[in-house]
Parts: sequence; structure tokens; C-alpha cells
Amino acid sequence: MIYPKKLENIIEYYKKLPGIGEKSAERLALATLDMDTDLIADFSSSLVEAKATLRPCKICGHLTDKEICDICSDEGRDKNIICVIEDYKSVFTFEKVGRYRGTYHVLNGLISPTEGISYEDINLSSLMERVEKLENPELILALKSNIEGETTTLFIKKIFEDKNVVISRLSYGIPMGADIDYIDVVTLDKALDDRKKISD
Amino acid sequence: MIYPKKLENIIEYYKKLPGIGEKSAERLALATLDMDTDLIADFSSSLVEAKATLRPCKICGHLTDKEICDICSDEGRDKNIICVIEDYKSVFTFEKVGRYRGTYHVLNGLISPTEGISYEDINLSSLMERVEKLENPELILALKSNIEGETTTLFIKKIFEDKNVVISRLSYGIPMGADIDYIDVVTLDKALDDRKKISD
Repeated sequence: MIYPKKLENIIEYYKKLPGIGEKSAERLALATLDMDTDLIADFSSSLVEAKATLRPCKICGHLTDKEICDICSDEGRDKNIICVIEDYKSVFTFEKVGRYRGTYHVLNGLISPTEGISYEDINLSSLMERVEKLENPELILALKSNIEGETTTLFIKKIFEDKNVVISRLSYGIPMGADIDYIDVVTLDKALDDRKKISD
Repeated sequence: MIYPKKLENIIEYYKKLPGIGEKSAERLALATLDMDTDLIADFSSSLVEAKATLRPCKICGHLTDKEICDICSDEGRDKNIICVIEDYKSVFTFEKVGRYRGTYHVLNGLISPTEGISYEDINLSSLMERVEKLENPELILALKSNIEGETTTLFIKKIFEDKNVVISRLSYGIPMGADIDYIDVVTLDKALDDRKKISD
């Protein structure tokens, strides 16, 4: 064995992270050993504590170290508007944009008949409970534009069909700054469907 | 703050690793939370233990969890041949090639007048002690081909000048498989200097 056992362990761990191959893992592990002992101790305990204390918010399912996440307990947020997303990672992305002032609902998956994931396997009943308590509920569906995303979108639309709920989805279209000549046909087609009047 | 504090700590740590930017650090941190609790606990303790137990070999300066590293204590290794390198990372690289059966000496730096690093700041006296005890010592200098590497190479040559020590350096030349048209001029010039008779 080329590496000391403990160094090998660190390399093996890094290799499990996304996008990190053998070479990168070795480089990261060796760089890790160059770090201060204090920093490593801090990181090491942060890891264990993060894993132990971070859990889904009881209301929206977003990752939090409290019972109710900061977004759900924020008085300034519009509780009537719920952005429905697949997993909590998207919450961070939306929050970085920073303009959205509603709340979220993390489905923790999408309906997928091929993979045997039904509507009961994702957080839909809790969404229904939330919506029932609201006066003017509005759902913004921000799900992937693949079969699972479309299926889940249609299913949610159906659930709330005869209830007084405004349901929208994010617009599809050309990414900002992208050259139209390089956009794939499906996106261009969707961008045509979702076209917006300039006077709007 | 968008991320829970403990997640933020993990992101900050990953950002300190080489080649990991803001975006990658976030992705790695979120992937970390998806890992098994056991795996995280293992990694976490490996980190702290690796930092605490890995130290330089008393003979060659290579990273080890013992007093004397596996290479120095290997009876099958030719103790008369010492490959002199800048840092222990190169030992792993050589060992991966797997063909070298001598030992190593880690200088832990290179002489650099501009940065105020003199011959006393690197592990040269321990190299001299090692060489003195050998019958037919041979040094293979495997140092960077920059000013610091050249300075250190020349200095080592001078130290052992009137002693019975064979000193060589790695050959410079065209990397295997590289297209000659794309090789930089300096390398090509060195490859000419280091040319080898085909009948050898």
C-alpha cells in the first residue's frame, strides 16, 4: 500500500464526493494534511454535528437546525405563496436569487411510475394540509422539465383542481445571454409556447 | 444567511482545498449531508487521527504513522541509492510507478535566495549524515527544473564533490506520447542536451 492507512481513508472519503476522481481525491487528502490541526478539528466536529442536527423543517421540509426553518418562521414572508420544489438544494438556489418572498415546500422526490415512486412516497399530503389552512393559496411549481417533473406537476394540478388554488409553473425559455442558435429545439419550442407580450 | 451555520462551516472548509471554488464547495457540502452518518463519523475521526499521527520518518522525512517509514525499514530496498525530492508528495508519485527500489530523502523545501530559504532551512544535514554511513552512495536528484531546483541541485553536487558519491538527476525531455510540435522550446532544448544513443 502506497499511502498510510489513515491517509487512504481520507482519500477514499473524498472519492465518494461528486465529481472527485482518484487523482483529485489524492490531491485533496494531501492538502488536508497541510491544514492547521485546529481547522481540521473544527471541520471534523462540524461534519458530525451537521449530520446530527440538520433535519427537515416540520412545515416545508427544508434543511434546518431548528424545528421550524428560518423561512417558515419569518413573519415577512408571504405564507400564501408556496414554491414547490423537488429537494432542499433548490431552496438555497432560490434564496441566492433573493427576490422570492414566499415560502417553499420540499417534495423530496418526484412521482415516477417507472421507478415505482408514487404520490404517497413524496411530501404531498403535507402540502395539501398546508394549502387547506390558507385563505388565498398560490402554488408555484418549480420542478424539473422531464417526465417525472411533468407527471408530478400534472398530479398536483389535479389534486387542487376543484379547490380555490392558483397554480403556476416557472416559465421555460432561453437562458439569459444565451445565443439562440445554440439552444436545443425543445427549449426553443417551449420558449415559443411561453412567449410573453412585450407590453405586459 | 442562506445556509445553516454548520453547513456554512463545511462549505468554508471545502473552499480552502485546492481547486475548490464557492460553487463546488457548496455542492460538496450538500453531497456530504447525503452520506451515511457512519461514513461521516469514520471520515471525521480519520481526519483528526491522520493529522495527529502522521509525521516525518526519522530517516528520510517521508510521511508515516511509524517512527521509521515502511520504505526505510524495507530490507529489500537498496539503501545505497537515495532519490532526493522536494516534498513527500513525490514519494507517492514514485511509488505509484513502482519500479524504483532505492530509498528517498525528503528535503522539505528548496534553496531559494529570493525567498530567504538557505541550505540550513531544508533537510540537507540529515542527508549528509545518511550518505556518510553508506559504502557506495548514489544520489538521484529529482527536483523541479526551476531556479530553486537548479540552485539546490548545484548545492548538493558541491557538498558531495570530493566525496565518493555518484550523483545523477532525472532526464529532461519530451513527455511520452506528446507531439513534438507542441513541446515548448526550453524542453525541446533540454531533450536535445539529454539525448541518448539508441544503441545504449
